[in-house]
Amino acid sequence: MSTSVILTKEEFLQHWLGHRTLTRRTLEKFPENDLFTFSIGGMRPFSELIMELLSIAEPGLRGIVEKQEKPYDHALGLTTKADLLARWDADTPKIIELYNQIPEEDFHKDYNLFGEYKFPIYSNLLYFVDNEIHHRAQGFVYLRALGIEPPFFWERY
Amino acid sequence: MSTSVILTKEEFLQHWLGHRTLTRRTLEKFPENDLFTFSIGGMRPFSELIMELLSIAEPGLRGIVEKQEKPYDHALGLTTKADLLARWDADTPKIIELYNQIPEEDFHKDYNLFGEYKFPIYSNLLYFVDNEIHHRAQGFVYLRALGIEPPFFWERY
Repeated sequence: MSTSVILTKEEFLQHWLGHRTLTRRTLEKFPENDLFTFSIGGMRPFSELIMELLSIAEPGLRGIVEKQEKPYDHALGLTTKADLLARWDADTPKIIELYNQIPEEDFHKDYNLFGEYKFPIYSNLLYFVDNEIHHRAQGFVYLRALGIEPPFFWERY
Repeated sequence: MSTSVILTKEEFLQHWLGHRTLTRRTLEKFPENDLFTFSIGGMRPFSELIMELLSIAEPGLRGIVEKQEKPYDHALGLTTKADLLARWDADTPKIIELYNQIPEEDFHKDYNLFGEYKFPIYSNLLYFVDNEIHHRAQGFVYLRALGIEPPFFWERY
């Protein structure tokens, strides 16, 4: 394409990593028990939302890079906050490594994410970040309902 | 820049407009009274969150295009759901028109948004969308707590 770059591949990665830092902070704020049990309106506890995010980011990217269209599996079986934080931290360098393997030229190619969602790769990646913001915001409301102040939305470092 | 385009200017606009459609659907789901009064954990009612979004999107873009660094004003004084929907709909074509006036070459230039947030324009625009996703998700939780099913997250058309 001949148009100017409005957002570089590296800028998008840094944007995502900033969001991951904020999501990690949000996870840290939860008391152990509430993380696995607290819910509003029949929604999932924050631990399950985090497991959804974990089962999308690294496995989704790995699928894109290795061209494997395996279904996702949100049931990761992580049962403590320490386990969730450890998986989050273990995934971050893998995410960076996998993301860096996607050629810029491929961002407009279709990929059938998890064997189910056939969209251009840029669109799949935007979805990962959007979905993380969406579920983390749910966590913010849970924290407020628990009387706990969430992190600042702009704290991404 | 010499790198390939991972996301075109038009694709980013369409991405944003898709989110605006979903936010509008979320607003439509609220009962009139709950829109202005329902709250969890001391957070603002959804009407105020919508007014925040309204006071950022069109005015923020206008500031970028007209290079005016006026402060934002969330207190729009809209007091009915019909007024909020009408303003939302009136702003969408203005957003398209203003966005299309930003040259691609300018996306990496710094702009002191609302006279307060000095970042590259691409970063300001990502923030607009992130902030919309974040507050809309809060609305999703309010709806669930009210026993109302929110729209599907992927319904952006």
